[in-house]
Amino acid sequence: VTQESRPVRTAAIIAVGSELLTPFRSDTNSLAITGRLNEIGIEVASKQIVGDDPRDLATAVTAALERADLVVVTGGLGPTSDDVTRPTIARMLDLPLEENGEVLERIRQRFAGRGLAMPEINRGQAMVPRGATALANANGTAPGLWIKVEHRRVLLLPGPPREMQPMLDVVVREYLAPSSGNMRLYRRVIKIAGRAESYVETLAQPVYSRWLAADPRISTSILAAPGQIELHLGIRSDSADRARMSLERAIGQLKAVLGLDIFTDDGQSLEEVVGGLLRARGWRIAVAESCTGGLTSSRLTDVPGSSDYVDRAAVTYSNRAKVEWLGVPEDLIRDHGAVSEEVAGAMAIGVREGAGVEVGIGISGIAGPGGGTEAKPVGTVVIAVAWDGGQRVQAFRFAGGRAQVKFQSSQAALDMVRRWLLEQPQSAGRRA
Amino acid sequence: VTQESRPVRTAAIIAVGSELLTPFRSDTNSLAITGRLNEIGIEVASKQIVGDDPRDLATAVTAALERADLVVVTGGLGPTSDDVTRPTIARMLDLPLEENGEVLERIRQRFAGRGLAMPEINRGQAMVPRGATALANANGTAPGLWIKVEHRRVLLLPGPPREMQPMLDVVVREYLAPSSGNMRLYRRVIKIAGRAESYVETLAQPVYSRWLAADPRISTSILAAPGQIELHLGIRSDSADRARMSLERAIGQLKAVLGLDIFTDDGQSLEEVVGGLLRARGWRIAVAESCTGGLTSSRLTDVPGSSDYVDRAAVTYSNRAKVEWLGVPEDLIRDHGAVSEEVAGAMAIGVREGAGVEVGIGISGIAGPGGGTEAKPVGTVVIAVAWDGGQRVQAFRFAGGRAQVKFQSSQAALDMVRRWLLEQPQSAGRRA
Repeated sequence: VTQESRPVRTAAIIAVGSELLTPFRSDTNSLAITGRLNEIGIEVASKQIVGDDPRDLATAVTAALERADLVVVTGGLGPTSDDVTRPTIARMLDLPLEENGEVLERIRQRFAGRGLAMPEINRGQAMVPRGATALANANGTAPGLWIKVEHRRVLLLPGPPREMQPMLDVVVREYLAPSSGNMRLYRRVIKIAGRAESYVETLAQPVYSRWLAADPRISTSILAAPGQIELHLGIRSDSADRARMSLERAIGQLKAVLGLDIFTDDGQSLEEVVGGLLRARGWRIAVAESCTGGLTSSRLTDVPGSSDYVDRAAVTYSNRAKVEWLGVPEDLIRDHGAVSEEVAGAMAIGVREGAGVEVGIGISGIAGPGGGTEAKPVGTVVIAVAWDGGQRVQAFRFAGGRAQVKFQSSQAALDMVRRWLLEQPQSAGRRA
Repeated sequence: VTQESRPVRTAAIIAVGSELLTPFRSDTNSLAITGRLNEIGIEVASKQIVGDDPRDLATAVTAALERADLVVVTGGLGPTSDDVTRPTIARMLDLPLEENGEVLERIRQRFAGRGLAMPEINRGQAMVPRGATALANANGTAPGLWIKVEHRRVLLLPGPPREMQPMLDVVVREYLAPSSGNMRLYRRVIKIAGRAESYVETLAQPVYSRWLAADPRISTSILAAPGQIELHLGIRSDSADRARMSLERAIGQLKAVLGLDIFTDDGQSLEEVVGGLLRARGWRIAVAESCTGGLTSSRLTDVPGSSDYVDRAAVTYSNRAKVEWLGVPEDLIRDHGAVSEEVAGAMAIGVREGAGVEVGIGISGIAGPGGGTEAKPVGTVVIAVAWDGGQRVQAFRFAGGRAQVKFQSSQAALDMVRRWLLEQPQSAGRRA
């Protein structure tokens, strides 16, 4: 495949899979694809989802080719009979399918690497439409396909995200970016914890409404995600330096009104931010959680390298575990109840001292749907942060179902740790 | 609007809004719409997302009307200039827009209720295509619209879910259900753990391929989700009893070939299934996890009521935590390494005995990206299940990034517990 002289400006995305037409699944690949295409200045004009039906797929691709310079199809490249993408596209573009020896060998080797013979059914994945370029799949058997259709392009990608994404990166870098010109879309994502959307909007709207008239124009959208409010800033520019400067200036204006409520101006997760703050101080953390059931610890350990600063976590659903592992005095639980400032504080102190680390978290609450009382309804959660010589305890009342209460509780706990860490000097050294 | 004699069997859904073509937002309305339509036997044949662009919307509606009996359009009914749905549909169907006094009065009253005069811009929302029926909006100003196009139907709904949903309920109840006959779509979701897609397909395909020719026909799709393979069965029938019987017979045939690899035939999550098995025996569980960082415990406690059978969990990233909380002998870690059958087994035994419960899980592994060695590369995970008088230990090598290794490890651990529990009689009573 050679570099194309005619630049690709618009794309249409088609996701294939009958399961995506049920009430249970939504297409998430298209979001990642849109993001990567936007980065090199390609706008997405339409997205469509069709079932495992050759006729519907052909109709969708035909319409998409009329609208867009690039048609991206994800899914339906598997080895089974309901994987219709490869034969359907080949037929509608009138390209004969030919077995590709190199692709076949790669599939064989993938099975051989796990000590298996390639099942005969996977042979079909080595069939490549004449003139198409097969794209190696580092994480699965289905190759991607890159096809020129006169001055348009068709890109077929596997459905599983971890197979799709590396392939998309290659296509963007090698086939699309070189002919895309210098115009790029630059984005920054700012996230705010512990505030309602209306609070953020009231402070931020007077700031970002001015940017619409600026040159270059900065577009902003505000988005209420679980446990956080996000501001998405975007700017189209042919100069990376100028775009970065404009975005930095804009972010500075937002920080002037929102202050420490902003936990990232670069799209990081809260667990990444907390991990970075701990690492910068050389400190470690231990977690004692009840109603969150391990979610706080699981989020902290989602970050690569987190074993450097996460020492341990205790999920103490039973009161006995609170006593045995954390040293929470039994009479404290009896007198105040497990969901109380006293017990959450004792959990944070107990897990920190037992682990011999700098920071401890204690979380106790009622995730629901059962277990609520009039005084402590479902959603009541008490969170404590403990350090050498001090602690902070805060009570919350979260709305939503069990999953929402769990997530918001872990978010509030991580945010309390973040705010406390920001007050501690980086050069403090170990305090355990 | 009168009841229609010709039943609606297929639908296409179009979501309108340029924000739905960015990397940050996905269309969730279509899931709710699909669920409601499926209930009365209407299948969704395609979903599309277009921006606030009259030409793109008209193209999408034209294609949808060729494919489906019912076209549902959500979004773009607001009062501003980028709300293109109403005028675009009226123009393409050649229906003049006429001001509807009743609708105008409702909008006026909505503003008056908050002590406001109706802004002139909202007057456009009272424009109704000739022959269309306006649908009252209890939660906003934009009315929905129900339009007959020969033997097809077009339904326009507002984008905000809380405005869309009540209107959809009215349309389903009053316009669609009466002419839908008794025909309904019945579904069952079967999930398999611990097996590759090709293995499941090889065994299941000869079974479900026969159903296509059966009467009533059962459609099947196979889906590789993280850590599990799913088979989605669907049947259209005018008799709930007959549909249920057909589905039960079909599931029986799948069980005959897939056996205990099937962990649910009714869409349950693995953590729900394990919880149900524990509850049926009156047993409790304790978890000791290292590389999964709390994910196994968090999944178990995602299930409402899980505090009945989850006693505690230890996330022992540090070796010291393994020794102190779980009683893992230090020399075991020194001699065999933390990721070993010996240490995973000792973790499961230690957490179980410490908690005094019937079942213990121990998980130790290397989630990556760092920490791998030649002998124990990233993805090496050892899992143990311990009970009174016995244990099972199994070593795995999982592919993928940190998140995939974490999830697959928790899935394998829960599946080991499930398989062991299935061998234990339900009437066993407490064994601690």
